Amino acid sequence: MTKHIIPVAMSGGVGSRLWPMSRRSKPKQMQALTGSLTMLQDTLDRVSSAAGDVKFGAPIIVANQQHSSVIAKQLSDLGIADYTLVLEPRGRNTAPVVAIAAELASTTPDAMILVLPADHHIKNVDGFRSAISKGAELAVEGKLVTFGIQPSGPETGFGYIRAGDSVGEGHLVDAFVEKPDATTAQQYLDAGNYFWNAGIFLFRADSVLKEMNTHCQTLTSAARAALDAGERDRQVINLDPTLFDACPSDSFDYAVMEKTAQAAVVPMDVGWSDVGSWNALWGMGPKDEHGIVAAGDVSLVDCQDMYVRGEGIRVAAVGVSGLVIVATKDSVLVLPKERAQDVKAIVERLEAEGRDELL
Amino acid sequence: MTKHIIPVAMSGGVGSRLWPMSRRSKPKQMQALTGSLTMLQDTLDRVSSAAGDVKFGAPIIVANQQHSSVIAKQLSDLGIADYTLVLEPRGRNTAPVVAIAAELASTTPDAMILVLPADHHIKNVDGFRSAISKGAELAVEGKLVTFGIQPSGPETGFGYIRAGDSVGEGHLVDAFVEKPDATTAQQYLDAGNYFWNAGIFLFRADSVLKEMNTHCQTLTSAARAALDAGERDRQVINLDPTLFDACPSDSFDYAVMEKTAQAAVVPMDVGWSDVGSWNALWGMGPKDEHGIVAAGDVSLVDCQDMYVRGEGIRVAAVGVSGLVIVATKDSVLVLPKERAQDVKAIVERLEAEGRDELL
Repeated sequence: MTKHIIPVAMSGGVGSRLWPMSRRSKPKQMQALTGSLTMLQDTLDRVSSAAGDVKFGAPIIVANQQHSSVIAKQLSDLGIADYTLVLEPRGRNTAPVVAIAAELASTTPDAMILVLPADHHIKNVDGFRSAISKGAELAVEGKLVTFGIQPSGPETGFGYIRAGDSVGEGHLVDAFVEKPDATTAQQYLDAGNYFWNAGIFLFRADSVLKEMNTHCQTLTSAARAALDAGERDRQVINLDPTLFDACPSDSFDYAVMEKTAQAAVVPMDVGWSDVGSWNALWGMGPKDEHGIVAAGDVSLVDCQDMYVRGEGIRVAAVGVSGLVIVATKDSVLVLPKERAQDVKAIVERLEAEGRDELL
Repeated sequence: MTKHIIPVAMSGGVGSRLWPMSRRSKPKQMQALTGSLTMLQDTLDRVSSAAGDVKFGAPIIVANQQHSSVIAKQLSDLGIADYTLVLEPRGRNTAPVVAIAAELASTTPDAMILVLPADHHIKNVDGFRSAISKGAELAVEGKLVTFGIQPSGPETGFGYIRAGDSVGEGHLVDAFVEKPDATTAQQYLDAGNYFWNAGIFLFRADSVLKEMNTHCQTLTSAARAALDAGERDRQVINLDPTLFDACPSDSFDYAVMEKTAQAAVVPMDVGWSDVGSWNALWGMGPKDEHGIVAAGDVSLVDCQDMYVRGEGIRVAAVGVSGLVIVATKDSVLVLPKERAQDVKAIVERLEAEGRDELL
């Protein structure tokens, strides 16, 4: 039986760990960091054609209103004319986004929504689409499906999903567990039934609204009110700012998935990355014989094991190794690859200094 | 007896070892790398007021013609209205410069000229002026005086001057010796009568012209011809391009100093540097408690032992040490301090790529 799935691309993140490329005015998902398409475009491109008996409908994109024109341009460049763009006056985390998307989708009978963070990279697109197809079998029966990423190492930076009994081609969710310490992460890896929680969800619109009305009724009503009172101009919806401000901020994981009895997990081993740091981009990038990933206007002499990017500026280095060097026309970042998370310290300092033009 | 000295600032160098700050269009001597004045301005400022019985006349500046307006602006900013600017169509090394300056100065009776590379830094200006005053006592008697820098270590990057018998407050020059290897440099340091050859000279105009006519007559005549046929517009002289092209290219050291019997050396221990690399700038710069010399728009977290400069661009680094990071609006350079000489490799690559806009 053909299943109708409406993709929902969540584009509300700021991606400050990829400063200086990622900026408030153009966060990482709107940048072409992993190929010729932006990550938002990649996210939508993955669900632009039918996958088995799954048909994808016109996507819903939820984003901050300041990114309206950038996103419209990127959709147009990709040849996507039929879409709904929901603009938030400010972020309220993922639960209100899901409520609004489900509400919009619920006008289509039997519609399912596929919630996709717009800033992830997936190498094996066929594998991804195959997992979606498997998940749809469970979602059509009323399950709230999350996709569990097969861990490739004892990662401490993600929450995990513990899979329980089998159901269809997936498992019931036994528990969502917090980011572990290194020892615990190794135990999860060894156990084999733990998956990374990537925040990719699939469910019927009516199923998720029913669960949200049970587990986070206030939030769901507030989100619906902001949508109903929003201004619609053709395919763009501006949520009502006052009503959306009044909506509680919460993650969909916490507000719904950790509480519902309908949670199921479908494993996914598709070369997934949340592109969470410059080191992650090094990990997934094409390396030369010196372990160097280079993009843009770059000249390296006697260097090894580097991620180097020059956007509109020449980057030259001699005799260094293990570094990230990223330069834009107004900013340069240099740090060891293994300290890629510490770009936070730089961003925080810029914030403290009021250097908004660089953020 | 009052001595009249005409300072001659030689500003023909390209300073490619300080790329990306130093550019063909604005070499290092026209940049404020060591303080608020450019090195050319500093060079002229050091000889702008009388030193003991030495009176300094209006300076002569010799430079490439493409730098005419930059230099005029920097002289004006320093309040120097009375000067002669000699413009070369292209460089012919230092001997023709000295011949031309001496020729210009020789119209003033008993004038001496003080030849100064425009891209050196001197910490102890009083000491410098005192050495000049001592040198003038020898120059007035017809000696060709070079100033020998007291070595601060077994440096292999400079030629050395071996001092012989005392004469006045200096010594006769026993020999000019080539750049030594490390062992020899240490021997020179231990011996005590070896000095770095900094290319700073003082002599009477008539004395040096006499020696040049003896030791490099062709070059001297050719330089004079290019001057005589040059176009003079108020205080700017454009050397005749065809005649100057025909002038042999040679260093004043080689063409004259190594051959004359009149060479004398006056020691100078004044915190001299030829600002020959980014590491040299680190060496002379004011360091914070982490050994960091920072200039411009710089933000460092957990870094040590660095030279960092951001000119019109923000430079941010975390957790690195021992590096030079220099960024301008179009280029970034990263390399270990001890490899500062290797910026050559980058400049050569830019040349090979025809990236003239970055050179």
